[in-house]
Parts: sequence; C-alpha cells; structure tokens
Amino acid sequence: MGELSTLFAPQRVAVVGASDEQGTVGHAITSNLLAEFEGETVAVNPNQETVLGLDCYDSLTAIEEIDVAIVVVPAHIAVDVVRDAAEAGIENVVVITAGFSEAGSEGSAREAELVEVATEYDLNVVGPNSLGVMSTGVGMNATFGPRMATPGSISFMSQSGAFITAVLDWAVDQEIGFRDIVSLGNKAVLDESDFVRQWGNDPETDVILGYLEDVADGREFIDAAREVTRETPIVAVKSGRTEAGASAAASHTGAIAGSEAAYEAGLRQAGVLRAHSVQELFDFASILDGQPLPEGDGVAIITNAGGPGVMTTDAVGDADIQLADFEDETLDDLSEALPDGANIFNPIDVIGDADVDRFADAIEIALADPEVGMAVVLACPTATLTFDDLAAETVRLQEEYGTPIAATLMGGSGTETAAGRLREAGIPTYFDPARAVRSLDALQEYATIRTQERVEPTTFDVDHQRARAVLESAADRGRTQLGVESMDLLDAYGISTPQGEVVDSPGDAERVASEIDGDVVMKIVSPDISHKSDIGGVEVGVSQDAVRDTYEDIIVRARNYQPDGSIVGVQIQEMVDLDEGTETIIGVSRDPQFGPLVMFGLGGIFVEVMEDTAFRVAPVAEPEASEMLDEIKSAPLLSGARGRTPADKGALVETIQRVSQLVTDFPAISELDINPVVAQPDGAIAVDLRLTLDQEEL
Amino acid sequence: MGELSTLFAPQRVAVVGASDEQGTVGHAITSNLLAEFEGETVAVNPNQETVLGLDCYDSLTAIEEIDVAIVVVPAHIAVDVVRDAAEAGIENVVVITAGFSEAGSEGSAREAELVEVATEYDLNVVGPNSLGVMSTGVGMNATFGPRMATPGSISFMSQSGAFITAVLDWAVDQEIGFRDIVSLGNKAVLDESDFVRQWGNDPETDVILGYLEDVADGREFIDAAREVTRETPIVAVKSGRTEAGASAAASHTGAIAGSEAAYEAGLRQAGVLRAHSVQELFDFASILDGQPLPEGDGVAIITNAGGPGVMTTDAVGDADIQLADFEDETLDDLSEALPDGANIFNPIDVIGDADVDRFADAIEIALADPEVGMAVVLACPTATLTFDDLAAETVRLQEEYGTPIAATLMGGSGTETAAGRLREAGIPTYFDPARAVRSLDALQEYATIRTQERVEPTTFDVDHQRARAVLESAADRGRTQLGVESMDLLDAYGISTPQGEVVDSPGDAERVASEIDGDVVMKIVSPDISHKSDIGGVEVGVSQDAVRDTYEDIIVRARNYQPDGSIVGVQIQEMVDLDEGTETIIGVSRDPQFGPLVMFGLGGIFVEVMEDTAFRVAPVAEPEASEMLDEIKSAPLLSGARGRTPADKGALVETIQRVSQLVTDFPAISELDINPVVAQPDGAIAVDLRLTLDQEEL
Repeated sequence: MGELSTLFAPQRVAVVGASDEQGTVGHAITSNLLAEFEGETVAVNPNQETVLGLDCYDSLTAIEEIDVAIVVVPAHIAVDVVRDAAEAGIENVVVITAGFSEAGSEGSAREAELVEVATEYDLNVVGPNSLGVMSTGVGMNATFGPRMATPGSISFMSQSGAFITAVLDWAVDQEIGFRDIVSLGNKAVLDESDFVRQWGNDPETDVILGYLEDVADGREFIDAAREVTRETPIVAVKSGRTEAGASAAASHTGAIAGSEAAYEAGLRQAGVLRAHSVQELFDFASILDGQPLPEGDGVAIITNAGGPGVMTTDAVGDADIQLADFEDETLDDLSEALPDGANIFNPIDVIGDADVDRFADAIEIALADPEVGMAVVLACPTATLTFDDLAAETVRLQEEYGTPIAATLMGGSGTETAAGRLREAGIPTYFDPARAVRSLDALQEYATIRTQERVEPTTFDVDHQRARAVLESAADRGRTQLGVESMDLLDAYGISTPQGEVVDSPGDAERVASEIDGDVVMKIVSPDISHKSDIGGVEVGVSQDAVRDTYEDIIVRARNYQPDGSIVGVQIQEMVDLDEGTETIIGVSRDPQFGPLVMFGLGGIFVEVMEDTAFRVAPVAEPEASEMLDEIKSAPLLSGARGRTPADKGALVETIQRVSQLVTDFPAISELDINPVVAQPDGAIAVDLRLTLDQEEL
Repeated sequence: MGELSTLFAPQRVAVVGASDEQGTVGHAITSNLLAEFEGETVAVNPNQETVLGLDCYDSLTAIEEIDVAIVVVPAHIAVDVVRDAAEAGIENVVVITAGFSEAGSEGSAREAELVEVATEYDLNVVGPNSLGVMSTGVGMNATFGPRMATPGSISFMSQSGAFITAVLDWAVDQEIGFRDIVSLGNKAVLDESDFVRQWGNDPETDVILGYLEDVADGREFIDAAREVTRETPIVAVKSGRTEAGASAAASHTGAIAGSEAAYEAGLRQAGVLRAHSVQELFDFASILDGQPLPEGDGVAIITNAGGPGVMTTDAVGDADIQLADFEDETLDDLSEALPDGANIFNPIDVIGDADVDRFADAIEIALADPEVGMAVVLACPTATLTFDDLAAETVRLQEEYGTPIAATLMGGSGTETAAGRLREAGIPTYFDPARAVRSLDALQEYATIRTQERVEPTTFDVDHQRARAVLESAADRGRTQLGVESMDLLDAYGISTPQGEVVDSPGDAERVASEIDGDVVMKIVSPDISHKSDIGGVEVGVSQDAVRDTYEDIIVRARNYQPDGSIVGVQIQEMVDLDEGTETIIGVSRDPQFGPLVMFGLGGIFVEVMEDTAFRVAPVAEPEASEMLDEIKSAPLLSGARGRTPADKGALVETIQRVSQLVTDFPAISELDINPVVAQPDGAIAVDLRLTLDQEEL
C-alpha cells in the first residue's frame, strides 16, 4: 500500500456510478463532492452522458490522473471496476458498494476477490460497504451522508456508517470540528491500524477518534498505536464489550481470558484511551483537542457554591486525578483575597456573593500554585456574577497560565454565550461537574501515556530447539493435551521447575528419587486423568523408602480408575515448600485478534472465584509484567501482607516474560496454564502445567 | 410537629423582614411571592410603612391567621421572631437568616435556642440558612432565588441552596417541572425524613428528589423512606461519598466500616435510588416521572443503525436489566415485517432504508412480546425517516402498550421537535444510548424496590439480663476492651460458641478441659496483649495430660512479655474443626448517622486485603442478612466452590441477625468484631471476639 495522504487530499476524484437520479447513492456522492470539494470531480457512468452538469466517462480506464476512485456500482461488477481503477494507475479506491462479506458466502467470495486485486496492485481500498470518506482540508465529502463536517482537527474513523451520520448531525450544534473522517466498512484492506498511522503522521490531526467493533490485527494495532500515541492521542469506543463474557467459554483459562480481556489489555498496551459511551468519546476528544496537557495530576476546584463543589470533589475521588494540596503561599493569598466564610482550601468556595473579580482572583491564585496541574471552574447563577464575565476571565487566565481547565456552568440558556466563548477557547463546559472532572482525568491519563517510556520486550537466551523437541515429540505421539511430563518445555525457556522426571518403572522411580534431597511428590501422568488427586493419583511427602511401593499403588489406582486409560508414567518431583511460598497462576490463551494473551493471578480462589486477574497481550515487556503484579487486588499478599513472607516479585516478573516469549515463539501453544507457579522468598518455581497443542501451527 | 401540608399550600404567608430595597433578600422574597402566589402575602417590618405596595405590620403578633412565616431578619433577632410567630399561633416558619450553626459557636448557641423554641411550641421550622421554599401548586416562590419552578410532579429537597438555583435555571430548557421545593438549610428542626413523609402523602408528588450532604437521623430516614418508596420513588445524590474513606480510620473494623459504607447500606435499605451525578439524578427523575414501571426486566432495542445498536447492547450489559429473549412468534412476525438484511434478533435492526411504518411495525411487534418489559427506540438520521414521525409513532405505541420506553435520537437540532414531542409524553430522549439504558435500569430498580416484601427484623428470645451482666461486670472492673472472656455475651444471645471458660488456676484449667471431649485450645486472656499468638499465648490441640503444664507455660510467657500487664486468666476452649468450616467475620461499628452497622465477610484475606464485605444498618431483617451472604464476591466459597464443604448459610444468616439484635439492644457496644465465626456444614460457631464498650451508654 502506498501513502494514504492522497486519499484525504486528492486533486481529482472519480465517482464510478455517478448518477443524476435523486435518491441514489451515486447522485448523493456526486452532489456532495460538487458542493465544496476544492479539487475536480469526475463522473463515470457508461449509461449517462452527463451527471449534474459533468461530462460522463464510460470507464476509469478512459481517464488519467485520478487520485481517488469512489465505487458505487452494483456488487457484481464492483471488483471489475476496482481492477479497472488499478490498471488506470489509481492508488486509492473507496468501495461504497455493499454485498460483500456482510452478505453471506457469495459476498465473502467477492470480498476475497477484492482483496486479491488490492494485493496484486498494492491498492489502498476503503470498505467495501462504506459510507465513504471526508476531508475538511480539501472540502471533500465523498460520502452519501446528508452532512459535511465542520473543519477542525479531530480525525474520526468508524465501523458504523450510521454513527458517522449521527455524529455529524449532532456535532454542528456542539461546535465539534473534524479533519478527516472515514467509514471503515468491512475493512477488507485498509483497517484501523492504517488510519492510525496516517493520522499520526498528519500534522493537522490533533486527536484520533475511533468507533470500532473489532480490531482486524491486534498486534499490528498495538504497534501502530503505541507509536502514534507518543504525539497524538487516540480515543476509542470498542463496542461489543459485554458479549465477550458470553462467547468466552471453552477451557478453564479460556473462560477467564475472554476476548474482552484481550481488548482491554490490548487497547491499554496500545496507549488508547477507551471511552465507554458516546458521551465520553466526545468529552474526551473535546478536551484533548482544546486544552494543553497537565503538568501534574493535582486539580483545583474553584466555585461560588459549596454543594456543587462537594459533588465535584466526589467526582475527583472517583477518578485517578487528585485534589491539589495547596502550598502555604496559596492559602495565604486566598485568605487575603477572599472574605470570611469563604473556603480557602480545595475546593475553593468564593461564596455566593462573589463578583467576577473575586472569582478570577481565586482562579489566578490557584493556577499559580505549582501543585495545581489542572482546574475546574464551577459557577452557579447568582445576582453578583454574570457567566459571560466569568467565561472571559477564565479564558484569559487559562491562556496566561497554560493550565488545562474544564468548566461547569450550572445554569440553563443563560449560560449559552459564556459556554460558546469557553468552547471557542477550547475549554469544555458541562452542566454536570462529574463530566468536567472525567474529561480532565482523561487528559491526565493521556499525559501519562505520552510520557511513559516504551520498553521493548526482553529476549531471553533460551533453548528454543529443546522446547521444540518437547512439542514435536508430543505431536509425534498424536497428543494435543500436555501435562506435567512436558515440564522440560519450561526448563528450556529458563523457567524454574522442581527437580525430577517422569518414570515408568519402580526402579527408575527409586533412582530418580534418590537423586533428590528429602521426601518427594509422586503424581500419575496420564492424558486421561485430569483430577489426579481425586483418584489417589498424587502422594506428597513420600520418603525414599516408600517410593517403590507408592509407585505400584499409584499405578494400580490409575488402572482401577481407567482400565483402558493411557498411562505415561509417574512423575517424581522435588517437594516445593508451599508454606513459605504464594501460589500463583500464569495462563495463556490465544485471542483471535490479539494473539497470545497472558494472564496472571494468585492461585486457586483468587483467580477462579474472585476473578482477580491481570492480562497483557504478548510479547510482554518488563514494565508490563511488573504492572500485572501490581494490578491484581490481592497484590499485597505478594508483598508480605498478613504476616506472609514477601515473594520474589522479580522472579515472577521474569517468569511472566519468559512464558510470554515461549508462547510468542510457538504459535502451536494454543493454551497454557502453569498452575501453580510458587512464588518463593527467593525465586519462583513452576510446579505443574496444562498445555493445548495445535499441531498445525507447529 | 404538625402536618407539613400547610407549609406547601398556605393561604397567608408573612415575610418578616420584607423590604423595598432592591438587592436585599427581604425584597427578593416579597417580590417573588407577589409574582405568582395565589394566596395573600403579608409584609412585616417595623421600620417600614409599606413594602412593594403592601401595608407593613410591625410584628407577627399583630396579625392573625398566618400559615407560614418567612424570617429574613438579622441573626441576633431571628429566634425572637420565631418565638413571636409561635405565640401568634403560626405553625410553619422558614428561617432564611444565616449565622447559625454554620457560623461558629455563637451561631451554634443560637441554633440550639431556635430548636428549643421549636420544640416548646411544636413548630415546623425550615432552615435556618435556607434559600426558602416553593410550591407550584399555589404559585408560591418563597425563596430569594431568581426563578420560579415550572409546575410538575417532582418534589425536590436540597441541602445546597445554590444547587436549587442552578437546577431551576437549567430545568426550564429541559422541561422538567416541580411540585414542591425546599432548601433544607441547617436542618435544625425539619430534615429529609420529614419531607420524605410529607411528599409520600402528597398525591401530587410522583417523584421525590434529594441532594443531601448528610442524613440527620439515619434510622429515622430508613423507616420513613422505606414506607414512602412503596408508592413514591426517591432519588438522591448523597455528596461527600469519597471523603468517607479518609475520615474512616480508628480501629480495624472501623477502617473498613467507614461512614460511606453506612450511607451505601442505609440508602439501599431505605429503598432510595442513589444517583452518582447531577446527570443521573435528573435522568432517573425524568423517567420515573414520565414512564410507567416495567413488568419485566427484559429490554427490546429497536434501531435503524447496527453500530449504535451494539453500543446500546453494551450499555444493557453494564446494567442489571437484560436483553429480552424474543418468543418465536415475535421472530416470525419480525421476519415477515422486515426486509432481508434486517436483524430480527434483539437488538432489532430495521436497517437504514426503513421508513416510519417499518420502524413502527418493529416497535409494535417487540412491545407485544411478553418477554419485553421495556424498550429503547434508537434512530440515526436517514433519508427515509423523519424523527418527527418516529416520535409520533413511539408515543402512540407507548400509550397503547403501556410499556416504558426511552428514546435515543442520534442527531443534532433536527431532533428537537421530535424530542419535545417525546418529552411531552414522558419519554426521555438522549443522544447517548447509554443514558437511555441507565434510565430504564433505574426504572426497573425502582420496580423491584416497590414490590419487595418488607420483612420486619426477627426478635429472638434471648437472655438480655445475662448479656447485660457480662457488660456491667466489665464496666465495674473499668474495662473498655473486652475479649474472649466475654463470649458469654454471645451465648446469652443464642450465638453458638465453643464449649469452655476462662480459668485462673492450673487446677481449674484441668477441670474445664476434662469436661471437653478431646484436645483443647488454650489462649491467654489479657486486655494488654492483643497479638496473642506472637508471644506464644495460644496453644492449639493441647491434650488433657498437657493442660496443667501448658497453663503454666502460657502464664510465664505472658508475664515475660508484659511483667506489669493485667492477666485475666487462660481460656480453655473446645477445638473447632477449621478444615471442615469456612472462617467468616461479623463486625459491628457505630455510625454517627445510622447507628450500628453490621459487616459480614470471609475471614482473613477476604475482608482485609480483598475488601470483600457486605454492610447493613441494624436491625437487620432475615432477607437482608441473607443478601449479605450473597453480596460478597467470595460467596461461592460458602456454597461449596472448589471442593469445599458447603457452609450452613442458614446458621450464618441467623448469627448475623442475633448479632444485630445484640448491638441494637446495647448501644454501649460501640464496636464488635467476632472473628472468626466458623461456618460449618451444620451450624456456625463464634470462636473469638473483640468488643469496645462505651460505659456511658450502658
């Protein structure tokens, strides 16, 4: 694919399927283009002489120097038209036509053809099944929607065309302006990652907004987005969040690591601000577009009404930002500036009889405090204050101090002029103070994302060959479910495992046990027995003397339980002191979009009953693995809460990274559950595993 | 206090401190009254002949038949004026004057005087420090705010006067109407419970709304509100939510049972719908005011746009309501009514080319399904649909089927007429579908509250005298911290405790142990030793033979640890089998507003690290205690998750209720921590306790 910049700044756009007939998509697009497009609109339709006054061409092959072709022909000839475009040397094609993968198997075949053509000619294809594209930079409305966007610096992609139509209709009143808009359609060729990259390179795009129903390639999106978010914030609604739970099921780890967990982790690792509603999407976009980033997470609240000030404080309590703790000088200055009865502590209450000067003095004193990284200016209607004056002063002070501000004007239509003035200066204004606070919280979240150091995943020196051998040997034996007999796999990747091995005779059992200090653990190894303890297949603390008899006992019990079951042998393992350790679980499932998803949690109840888990898309870098440990609610138990011995967190963090490397190296590992990984005061040791092998990926 | 109905429907209102001077509160109130009040306004001011054309009286004592006196005189004579009012036989007084408890100790003394007068004369006093009262029923604006409310059926109380001003300014554009409004001020006499009762009895009030910063008497409020919410919904913002955490600290249980926990529990027990922002407060009020209650928790989504339909579904996933599962007949009907490409499953997508007839058909088919208790009608702008037509059809169908509907018109100013039409019919309309869903969720929550059976707390037959004797004997010995030696207290209230007693000689130790089957547990009992295990003060599994020696050992260790410490003795206790049981904690703290607050959680990590707790204000009825067990996230562990023996939940529920009765009976128990209460397969047994005694309450 070439550069996408031409797609949004073409000189000549051809509409294939242009039409004079009112109510057709071909008519709508042609007339939308003719309305404001600064470049040339070219009509293509073999059945018409002219369209809306334009001379009509029979085919794209008959024209030269077209930058973008918009395809609105019937589905059965759409792919041919795209091929024509490619052969005519056109690099950008927007396929409006529907009837592709969204429409049954015939459509899917058509879409496959489309992708083939695009690949063959290295085409940029938007859609199919798209509303079209817009760019206010060149006045281009190449959609069949009824409304052109107001110019601005938000670029917006949406997997729903109707949502674009709705947003444009609404955005006019909200004075929200856009740079580029794309209706992604079926994303057969170009997807969110491509547009993220394009807009990340576009100096005129200040905020990237997305409505996504899925992410075509999770890993590619993470890579693209984490690069872009160093400079340009991305805010996205990922819809279909809550269905994840239902579609997740499969295996034990699978049920926990549903695909919503992958999106949550993936979007976070990508540095994307996730909005959970339409309101949040635009609230976040507006403040990111209009206000500078805060230089600290302390917020000052300045109000003329105590009650609403308390509500605002509650909203701060719900968010990740903090109520700024004023310096003494600030308090002194506020004492001097404000009358008795005012509150000089945060939230500052200038009280109901404040005029604009008193209010502005308080704002200025707050903004001058180095602890104040952002501010909420909150006013209720009073006899002594006009909203317009307050807006003017707020705008002036925001510009002077460069501190981000969100405003709350708690009134009706009387606030409109003031709100307009604030909006013009990029200061968002709401009736509900909670929205102002949430917006500032998002701004601060992006400030953190932007300054976060990007650490590449560590590549450990591992024995890749040996690990492959373990998997291949299992595959050769036709096995898809691997257990403790495959602990070598972990060992090959430098993950500590207890000393021991799987044996298939009493003599070998004695020999292996004799090489181990102290008592041993003995476990049946059989792909047909999953609940080993229940059938007496596990013996803990077996002394050297008892190893031979125990071997026989375990085998007999297994035979009794499943006379026809396949028995691999008995595992003889060094005892791991659970009293001094904390049992944890490291699991991996494979998400269709994001690939390997690593889960961490504390053993047993914590993961299964309390659902106290942390997820990251692999490969997992060191800081991400470290965050996983801190993120779970039971984290204090790893640090020695309630008289426990503190666990070696470094060893856990390294184990997570090594597991991440293992599953990244071997796509054949479709599920992995290392349970428990015992975190000890000095080290972390993997005691058991269950692995699902996808032989086709080996 | 007499009936409050006269306060909101007076015939003659006197303004004491009425004034001709622009900009004064006395002028504002008098002119506000003169503007629309249907009754007679009487001016009182000894310094003026007339006020705004009214003859002026010198004093309330000079007038007869005044229903409400509004007091706006200076603080130092305000109480005298209230006394005059009382002596003139006036039953309702609204004290606007500030300078009471909000203003230091002098003000507090003044407020105490005011309360005294009110009590003496059985006066209804609003305030002091109030913005005033309004009632649209009689056109009365007895506030000094700039705006009169539009008539409606929402009655609104607020602890912030500024918030009333702000809301009234804003509500005009939102077309939100009010019945009565009261600015609660300092709540010296009348508080939220009084107004809840009044409005519960007022047939013209359909919804009660509150902005509260505290609740004066939690228990009274619960009793008043739970009665009222059988007929009239109450929605409240309780602000100061998040400071709770900070102010909580004190003791171990106290830190968990902060006062926000009390509000959360108390408001829930009261049946109050809690809003967390201003937006929610009015969103909930609007739908409760405008729509009937749903007859099931299944919601149908009918949309002409797939993407926004998915967003709406996500919002349903976030809420407690469910996506309705359509009956076969509904699916058949939808198949017939809708074209190919439409989605007949919930969310129904009538697709972008739908006209109003197709849209309305789909709505009607959905509403006819008995699984559908409510609906979201969601439209994006298209060429084939006008919002106005859709609104008309939605209103018609809502009325026909009586099913509550919330609408989402995803567009700009083009939606205004349609939105107005829907609002007129009581159907709330938002741009963001998440708000529509949250509103329906609140409606369903109220439907559940309304139908919930109110069960009175059980009064168990207990040995009150014996419990009192335990507490009195501790008090006599000057003790405030009680421990395991006071287990008799629990026994007296029918709570199972292990067999055993506290002894102070080796001989008694042997005697008590010999009465117990099997090995025993021995623990030092000393108010000066809190971490008994750490100093070797606890021995588990002591055989009968070893009891004498162990007694001596424990005493020696305690003496070594604290040579001057007071030693009560050694507790000899029956062993409780922890392997077959689940350790739980039942705690009680005393909240300044709500009184005894009972906490339940699983032992150790679950309460302390995972903060997995449930709270209820005592007395706790059986269904409430039962809810507590289900509410904690670790609940499955009580039901036998992960191979555990299921606990006797009935015994735990009864124990919670008996503890609740104990702390309700004895206000002297200021804190109680029964830890552990071991839930066994058959019974629940309290093993240890810590209790803080407030001797003054005994």
